[in-house]
Amino acid sequence: MSNLARVLIDCPDQKGLVYKISKIFYESGLNIVSNQEFVEKETQHFFMRSSITGDFDNASLQKSLEDTVPNANIKVLPPVKKNIVILATKESHALGDILIRHIAGELNANIVAVIANRENLRDLVQRFDIPFIYISADNLSRQEHEELVLKELSKYSFDYMVLAKYMRILTPKFVSAYEGRIINIHHSFLPAFIGANPYKQAYERGVKIIGATAHFVTDDLDEGPIIYQDIIRVNHRFTWKQMQKAGRDVEKIVLARALNLVLDDRVFVYNNKTVVFDV
Amino acid sequence: MSNLARVLIDCPDQKGLVYKISKIFYESGLNIVSNQEFVEKETQHFFMRSSITGDFDNASLQKSLEDTVPNANIKVLPPVKKNIVILATKESHALGDILIRHIAGELNANIVAVIANRENLRDLVQRFDIPFIYISADNLSRQEHEELVLKELSKYSFDYMVLAKYMRILTPKFVSAYEGRIINIHHSFLPAFIGANPYKQAYERGVKIIGATAHFVTDDLDEGPIIYQDIIRVNHRFTWKQMQKAGRDVEKIVLARALNLVLDDRVFVYNNKTVVFDV
Amino acid sequence: MSNLARVLIDCPDQKGLVYKISKIFYESGLNIVSNQEFVEKETQHFFMRSSITGDFDNASLQKSLEDTVPNANIKVLPPVKKNIVILATKESHALGDILIRHIAGELNANIVAVIANRENLRDLVQRFDIPFIYISADNLSRQEHEELVLKELSKYSFDYMVLAKYMRILTPKFVSAYEGRIINIHHSFLPAFIGANPYKQAYERGVKIIGATAHFVTDDLDEGPIIYQDIIRVNHRFTWKQMQKAGRDVEKIVLARALNLVLDDRVFVYNNKTVVFDV
Amino acid sequence: MSNLARVLIDCPDQKGLVYKISKIFYESGLNIVSNQEFVEKETQHFFMRSSITGDFDNASLQKSLEDTVPNANIKVLPPVKKNIVILATKESHALGDILIRHIAGELNANIVAVIANRENLRDLVQRFDIPFIYISADNLSRQEHEELVLKELSKYSFDYMVLAKYMRILTPKFVSAYEGRIINIHHSFLPAFIGANPYKQAYERGVKIIGATAHFVTDDLDEGPIIYQDIIRVNHRFTWKQMQKAGRDVEKIVLARALNLVLDDRVFVYNNKTVVFDV
Repeated sequence: MSNLARVLIDCPDQKGLVYKISKIFYESGLNIVSNQEFVEKETQHFFMRSSITGDFDNASLQKSLEDTVPNANIKVLPPVKKNIVILATKESHALGDILIRHIAGELNANIVAVIANRENLRDLVQRFDIPFIYISADNLSRQEHEELVLKELSKYSFDYMVLAKYMRILTPKFVSAYEGRIINIHHSFLPAFIGANPYKQAYERGVKIIGATAHFVTDDLDEGPIIYQDIIRVNHRFTWKQMQKAGRDVEKIVLARALNLVLDDRVFVYNNKTVVFDV
Repeated sequence: MSNLARVLIDCPDQKGLVYKISKIFYESGLNIVSNQEFVEKETQHFFMRSSITGDFDNASLQKSLEDTVPNANIKVLPPVKKNIVILATKESHALGDILIRHIAGELNANIVAVIANRENLRDLVQRFDIPFIYISADNLSRQEHEELVLKELSKYSFDYMVLAKYMRILTPKFVSAYEGRIINIHHSFLPAFIGANPYKQAYERGVKIIGATAHFVTDDLDEGPIIYQDIIRVNHRFTWKQMQKAGRDVEKIVLARALNLVLDDRVFVYNNKTVVFDV
Repeated sequence: MSNLARVLIDCPDQKGLVYKISKIFYESGLNIVSNQEFVEKETQHFFMRSSITGDFDNASLQKSLEDTVPNANIKVLPPVKKNIVILATKESHALGDILIRHIAGELNANIVAVIANRENLRDLVQRFDIPFIYISADNLSRQEHEELVLKELSKYSFDYMVLAKYMRILTPKFVSAYEGRIINIHHSFLPAFIGANPYKQAYERGVKIIGATAHFVTDDLDEGPIIYQDIIRVNHRFTWKQMQKAGRDVEKIVLARALNLVLDDRVFVYNNKTVVFDV
Repeated sequence: MSNLARVLIDCPDQKGLVYKISKIFYESGLNIVSNQEFVEKETQHFFMRSSITGDFDNASLQKSLEDTVPNANIKVLPPVKKNIVILATKESHALGDILIRHIAGELNANIVAVIANRENLRDLVQRFDIPFIYISADNLSRQEHEELVLKELSKYSFDYMVLAKYMRILTPKFVSAYEGRIINIHHSFLPAFIGANPYKQAYERGVKIIGATAHFVTDDLDEGPIIYQDIIRVNHRFTWKQMQKAGRDVEKIVLARALNLVLDDRVFVYNNKTVVFDV
């Protein structure tokens, strides 16, 4: 009976890792559909992602790999759709792009809910028959609002939280509750223009290129591991509003690509950076 | 009373055109918000687009300009939303992107209808409360099918027709009925890979970059004036299906940008080419 | 007798500027080869660059323009080769690229001298029969070294100074001596990675894109008006040395393009930003 | 005693290839510095490039690999500088860029000679102390000229021939004499604009992006395996001469990158395409 899985392994580098791991695959009669490895030179850390098919049992394969490389992080993952929750505020472009991909079957995820601190996106989300939860932040402290969001989030089972232009700063408590599982789109080419209104900053600095950055969220604002970035050219004719408008296309594409990479289990996080085994 | 208009002028170049035209603007007490000119060197043809404000009457301004530059094509256009009809087949990415922009108010157009030769997009379109008309081509000749589409189109008043991955070749009769008003997205970096399945052609040729091209439709398949193009890198790992998937993002962004340029009256067509006065 | 000039005008915006200026051109019987204008919206400042031909005298035209627009900065510039001095340290790619363009006649400038604080580039420069002056900084304070460089510079007549990977920080005194005439290539996508070793910073931050920035030098390190920028993609496989190597191609092309824009009188500086009337 | 080599293997795919090959590396006590594999899905062909260090003998390693994978193409290559011959005509940008990289020690190759069918590049080449051979094509048939070039080439020992804007069409006889070893830079984004004066073709077609393509030369003009491509944006303001000028920067960078990939043994040719194991 044919099975299909993605095997992700990372550990300190040592001689013979590829040999030892591929030996297990070979002796289990598996086919390697694709295989990518990388050794980070500074810290001598090894990364490997294999897409395999064959007649095998995930748990047994995991066990064999753990016995062979005892100090490694090992994941044997079925290539199934993951669950995501989306947080948004009022802009529709990034959210809308995910919704369109979702309904077209081009997103490897089920959207379990959209939570927003403004109400204007309700109409858009409900057109796609996805639960929309409005949690106003009016008259609430950051902590009080987050408590409400956390309570709502606790009702859902999900693999990743996607901040699709969610314009609220998260507290360490919130971040730690979903550590390594929150993906944000920042509307600048990080590390340029950290913080508020990067398009205005870009306009004032007079840059000739603007960009967007998808990254995992950590406690340090805009400092988490970068997954994907892209840019577009601007010139002196652009006001910051026009930069913002032009930037939306970059933001939504960057977020969608990063999301697809994560959903396909192509991204390792290590040392506040990512190793991305792209197509 | 303040008015706002876009003035588009093109004519054979001659000395003093800018002077004569700006004299009219000045003597009418108008403000020039932005002004772009270009002289095509080969044919000595002059193009100018001005965005103006002030207390003026469009018809009178048109008359003054015609008196001053008698042999010119002159348009004084109010900056209003235009009407568009969309033709599609079965892919949702380009259509969906336009629908999302439309509902967010980021498209300078009203979508009066979507016509498709397949039925699967009905659900998506109707979620946005836009009329969807399914005109099957089954068991019909190209001419017979086009007759039905033309008949349906005749019910609507629209400025531009957008082919959002409409996978049917148009006859000269159809094209001439809407000459200069049909915008197509071609899924290759034209003039590379004209014709059917450009991604498969690109894969077989082993290119390292693929692209998409938005152009006005003329009688010659894939030979019309190019409005906008963009590209993405690929590598040997990409199957043609993966090229196709990656290409969708480029297609939809290229079509949307071209459409915005046209809707903002920034595009002149001349000698089967475009002069684009971008932001 | 046919003359050829570039007219650069900037001043506070007011009604009728294009009219008044083009009136002078028209009444002088000039041909406008190309014409570009721009009004900066925030400060309502007007910029115009015209390339003109005809039977005119530069001084008289300048006088007519000054009489018509009294508060403007006006330059009537002959399209002649400018003189440049190049400062370098030890890397050859940016310097070498300029030398090759120079000898091919593709640089609109004469290189009057190359001054370096290391000696290794002497061989390369002398192959092109260009004076090479080595001014060691060994055992000298920044001020002492700069005095020597300033003294050497005073021997030459030049329009622009090009820092082709000159790895010394300039003092305000030095900068003010050549204000608005020093062009630097910074090996990052500014404002990201200001300061020392931007490639190492980029590596440590884990960015997916690196870049280079050509800018005019001001007292604030890496904060001067940006002329041109470009980028390339990197990934987790790149060590910072590999980023540095890949970045060299971007650095040299960005510097050369910026230099060509400046030499062709296409760049205005205003509010610590540039208005670039590109081809 | 430490050795260093690149191992390139390609063969029909079969189960266990990675295992069998890495087993040999492991049992020989080698370190894998980097390792990249790829299976071409259509034809099920396997490619692998490993960079290895350790105490080994190239010939013995080759033998072990051949015994293990009998039907494979196997190369064990020392990471040494290769020899190249450059053919040029009259343009200096691509040639000059290679010369500058060469003298800076950034090209993994020795340039043994430059052969040209025009004489104007002699001065440039000789400044770098590299033999320049002028072989005029005046009054000669294509065959006669090629005979002279082939005779000259026979005097040199070289690994690759680089056509740095060599504007002569090669006969099948010439190509077959150096099959798979001739690298050309084509001044268009292939397969667009095959043949003469692609910039003029691009101008006439009104494209918004132009490019350059480095490829191996085969009998079919401009149809050989593509190694690397890049592009730049143009607009209606560009004459074809300006496209040509702007394109030169792309041409030289594309050729240099392709050349570095080939010199670093990162390029496999298969089915008239390339598999490129980039950094």
